[in-house]
Amino acid sequence: MTFPVVGMVGGGQLARMTHEAGIPLGVRFKLLSDGPQDSAAQVVGDVVVGDYRDLETLRAFARGCDVVTFDHEHVPTEHLRALQAEGVVVRPGPDALVHAQDKGVMRERLTAIGVPCPRHRIVEDPRDVEAFAAEGSGFPVVLKTVRGGYDGKGVWVVRDVEGAAEPFRAGVPVLAEEKVDFVRELAANVVRSPHGQAVAYPVVESVQVDGVCDTVIAPAPELSDELAAHAQQLALTIAKELDVVGHLAVELFETADGRVLVNELAMRPHNSGHWTQDGAATSQFENHLRAVLDLPLGDPRPRSRWTVMSNVLGGDYPDMYFAYLHCMARDPALRIHMYGKDVKPGRKVGHVNTYGDDLADVRERARHAADYLRGTIQE
Amino acid sequence: MTFPVVGMVGGGQLARMTHEAGIPLGVRFKLLSDGPQDSAAQVVGDVVVGDYRDLETLRAFARGCDVVTFDHEHVPTEHLRALQAEGVVVRPGPDALVHAQDKGVMRERLTAIGVPCPRHRIVEDPRDVEAFAAEGSGFPVVLKTVRGGYDGKGVWVVRDVEGAAEPFRAGVPVLAEEKVDFVRELAANVVRSPHGQAVAYPVVESVQVDGVCDTVIAPAPELSDELAAHAQQLALTIAKELDVVGHLAVELFETADGRVLVNELAMRPHNSGHWTQDGAATSQFENHLRAVLDLPLGDPRPRSRWTVMSNVLGGDYPDMYFAYLHCMARDPALRIHMYGKDVKPGRKVGHVNTYGDDLADVRERARHAADYLRGTIQE
Repeated sequence: MTFPVVGMVGGGQLARMTHEAGIPLGVRFKLLSDGPQDSAAQVVGDVVVGDYRDLETLRAFARGCDVVTFDHEHVPTEHLRALQAEGVVVRPGPDALVHAQDKGVMRERLTAIGVPCPRHRIVEDPRDVEAFAAEGSGFPVVLKTVRGGYDGKGVWVVRDVEGAAEPFRAGVPVLAEEKVDFVRELAANVVRSPHGQAVAYPVVESVQVDGVCDTVIAPAPELSDELAAHAQQLALTIAKELDVVGHLAVELFETADGRVLVNELAMRPHNSGHWTQDGAATSQFENHLRAVLDLPLGDPRPRSRWTVMSNVLGGDYPDMYFAYLHCMARDPALRIHMYGKDVKPGRKVGHVNTYGDDLADVRERARHAADYLRGTIQE
Repeated sequence: MTFPVVGMVGGGQLARMTHEAGIPLGVRFKLLSDGPQDSAAQVVGDVVVGDYRDLETLRAFARGCDVVTFDHEHVPTEHLRALQAEGVVVRPGPDALVHAQDKGVMRERLTAIGVPCPRHRIVEDPRDVEAFAAEGSGFPVVLKTVRGGYDGKGVWVVRDVEGAAEPFRAGVPVLAEEKVDFVRELAANVVRSPHGQAVAYPVVESVQVDGVCDTVIAPAPELSDELAAHAQQLALTIAKELDVVGHLAVELFETADGRVLVNELAMRPHNSGHWTQDGAATSQFENHLRAVLDLPLGDPRPRSRWTVMSNVLGGDYPDMYFAYLHCMARDPALRIHMYGKDVKPGRKVGHVNTYGDDLADVRERARHAADYLRGTIQE
């Protein structure tokens, strides 16, 4: 057998769905998971349980892998540099990945290559935050720890100098950003291979609720062709300039005056790309695998006029399987993607995809299924 | 967790692809495999290596499974009856499955319920074959061992009484059938649940080469609506009358005078349904799982005008992975499904799916990829 072994660090749902996408390709999949019951560990054959923060564990795991890639951004950059120096193929590489790990490094680099970002500055203390606000249009100001945040964690919207104290308590550098007055959030997702080939998915709208992605609409409704092409071009430029290999999600703010500003980067499959599993000719998971293996990339084009993804969050009812009966009977074309996670209130435990020609109908079906699975509605 | 455990007996590609389809549903998948490197065993987490012909092995495997289903028809019927008597949920059940295990039982039952079959009779020896031939239009006659055949194995086309000796050597009852003068082969695939819900996939054309399925075209080109509906109705009738649970493939001969006769039955996902992975709203694998779990069935409708599946057979070149470079670059929308099997000449090691609006183009793309992966062409 000459089929390569892909080593995936992290046992979350992204690893689970990447494994699923890799089965048809015949590639061998090896998982480094925190625990034996993590989302991906439940469905993968070759699982190593270990701590990704430990270099020796990573080293042992990487032996026998043709390429190592990631389900999350939390592997210490210095460990990745050490592995790379020892000949391990790490994709995306640490020099790219650091921009998804450290928001300060990301802002500095994007600004240097001319990518539009919110006004920003590393701040030292609450007084510095006050100065940053005064330099612009005042409070509110967004504060972010440069490392470790996700899904709204590690992010504060502060309205005055007193409110600016908490972010500094973690001892991590803090980035201040203007609070952008956006009309909506978009995501421009691209995939790039070591060969330099890249594909761009349609730009999508991402609807956030309480700082967590709730629904993604592909393509973003009523987005002008010009702004869509501009956003895709920005994402392709970032992928090239930062030498990204794999899937790159560029989260964007669309402003009232028709511009886009980069919010966040993720260098892995991303929630804003889950719609591609049922809505695109090639899913983000398969294209991520193809990219890290330096295979030619797959067609990113949509298969339906509209595809909508809604996340399924944990609610008060732990038995989501029972809800399948109603959801599947109501909508035989509903696509359910569950992660094998225990239900906890507010936790992402799955998502649903719907597609079709009528956007209102497609949205309603996704909304209903996500709410019914969560237990918010009982119909 | 209340998600059920599906026990799959058999570690071949059908089990592999059923596992893949089960990951998004969040169902637990447990595999009984002949060996740790079988196709499905490579990609499943929970694998028991054991012999499906041994009742104690089956019994131990079935413990903790909410339902037991199959990748092949070879589990002894009496073992399945024993398991069922002990309370194991076996789907399809032995009373249904026996019709896919024993061609003699199948012919008798189908004839009894009025399903058109080729003229047939259980024969005792070569002289009896000669008598069978004389009762109809003479030789050639098709002889089949009633159990154990697949992909052309266990089937002989005999042209005279001397040629009729070999099939009797195995000591298995032999079924004689008229050699049907068909214009092409079709398959009518349906899925049925214990609730009695059933869905019918579009009727497909199956192009055989040397007795092995080579290409499947969905839907069957230029098939009249009347004959398509008739074939679907036949398959639904068989599923109901035989109390099939899960996927039922009904292989059909289309005759020059516009009739269909049943050739073979399979009560599991089937090669003639692989196109559904990329061509239907719900794949045969997912619908098989939904059926054995008694969940509402998924939409069987096609997503594209045409979908074509071509099998990838082993050729002289063992390194199919290298051929990915060319195939993926030439056709970014090509869907590759490999089974993780070692390449042996003539062995089914994977398949490709293509879809689109232009049948000639869709066929050419599938043909080219299958031939290139096999090494028959080098372009």
